[in-house]
Formats: sequence, C-alpha cells, structure tokens
Amino acid sequence: MTEHSLWRFSRAFHRAINERQREDLEALIDDEIDWAIYGPIDMFPFFGARHGKAAVLEVIRQIADNVRVHRFDRESIMLGAETAASMLRFSLTMLDANKPVSLRVAHFAQFRAGRLARLRVLVDTFDLVEQALGHPIHLPRIA
Amino acid sequence: MTEHSLWRFSRAFHRAINERQREDLEALIDDEIDWAIYGPIDMFPFFGARHGKAAVLEVIRQIADNVRVHRFDRESIMLGAETAASMLRFSLTMLDANKPVSLRVAHFAQFRAGRLARLRVLVDTFDLVEQALGHPIHLPRIA
Repeated sequence: MTEHSLWRFSRAFHRAINERQREDLEALIDDEIDWAIYGPIDMFPFFGARHGKAAVLEVIRQIADNVRVHRFDRESIMLGAETAASMLRFSLTMLDANKPVSLRVAHFAQFRAGRLARLRVLVDTFDLVEQALGHPIHLPRIA
Repeated sequence: MTEHSLWRFSRAFHRAINERQREDLEALIDDEIDWAIYGPIDMFPFFGARHGKAAVLEVIRQIADNVRVHRFDRESIMLGAETAASMLRFSLTMLDANKPVSLRVAHFAQFRAGRLARLRVLVDTFDLVEQALGHPIHLPRIA
C-alpha cells in the first residue's frame, strides 16, 4: 500500500518550517497550486491567498522565519484517494517575540499526482491574535 | 444508494435554526454526542463543549435564538462511510443586533447509525468578532 500524499507532504512541510530544508517540499507542490490561509493579513502577512509554486514556496519561507513547531496533535482526520482534511492542535513558538502559542487549525488539501494542488486552511484566529498580542481583548457578551 | 447522514443532518439543522423546528433534528443526534465549537465563549455563550443530546439540543436552541442563516456555500468537502468534513461560508444575521455576518467555518463530524455522535467546529473567530463588534480591532504587524 502506497503512503498517502498527506504524510509525505506533512513531513516535508515540518522540515521546511523547523529546519529550513525546502528541497523535499519543492517536489511535492504542484506548479499551479491554489493556496489560502484565512486570517488577518495585516498582523500576519503570511496569511492570505497564493497562486503557483514560487509564491507558495516564498510564503512557506516567511512562515519558517516566524514560527517554530514544537508538536502537533491531529484531533480529526479524513483521507480520500487524493484528498485529505484534518484538524490539528499546534504548539508553536513565534520566533520574533519568543512567545509560545497553542493554535487550532483545520485544513482541506487536494493532491494531483502526489503533489499538493489546492489547500484551504482555517485558523482559530481570535485565539491566535490574543496570544500574539500577549493580552486578552475585552469582548462584550452579545448573545 | 442511501443518502449520506450529513445531508439529512444538515437539512434538519437548518430547519432547527431558521424555523425553530427541532423534531427532525432530535432523531439525528446520538444520546452520547460529544460536541465542541471552538471560539470565545465570553462573547458567544453557545460556543464551547457540550456532552449528551439534551445539552446539544439546548445549545442549538441558543444558536437559533441568536442567528438566522441566509445562505451557505460548501467550499470543500470530504465524505466517508460515517464521517464528513467540510469548509463552509455562511451568510448570517445576528438577530440581536440585526447585523449581517459572513463567516467561514470548518467541521468534522462522526455519525453512529446515522446519528451525529461527534462534532468539532472551527470558526474564523477574529473575523467573526470584528463583524459582531461592528468595527475593526487594531492589530500590530508582528511578522
């Protein structure tokens, strides 16, 4: 049985982030990749949409410049033939401020011939913003 | 071919929210359901974890008291035998403030004998909070 593309991509992605080794990853990204991480791009310029392999490799470099991954737990997962979705909880350090962050993320991935062709990532952004700021944002109770 | 449990649940859920008709939904929830919507519970008390059918029906009633769904687009989806995950974009009204909200959500669902047994929901919470407040929150650029 062949290994699912998600596992190969996940290993290469974490090597790219933590060890800045992008060679493995380059071979696993489709030239026409359609990529989006939803979130406040004013605060985190590496969020947002990217199209094409060069733009995606560049944004992964930016993420690697800002984040180190300590661990992640996959809380939910679904695998299809060339698709995958999971919900993960990451323990990170924001390198700039040397700040620990715990973050929940959901992704939906499509592969084409084993290469990542489409990625959509949703982040628990309010939780992230509060941790990055280092203090809670006061919220009224609205419901 | 039998209809996937997700479609039946989705129809019943939207009827419960928009028409406050919960009869269909009650039959589609496992007695021991394990449910969590991640987000700031201080602002939105219907976020958070719930265990068991009664607690989940009660939180769905609270959501129905606060939200009307106008439309939703399913941007990504994966279906398994008794599992489903999707990313959706909702157009809602927050009834209290009569405020329109556009919201991206990811869910992972497990069914048991056709009934929802486990649900995890991730929301683009910062986007939601800004829309609910009605003004942007100033963010420093950190990366």
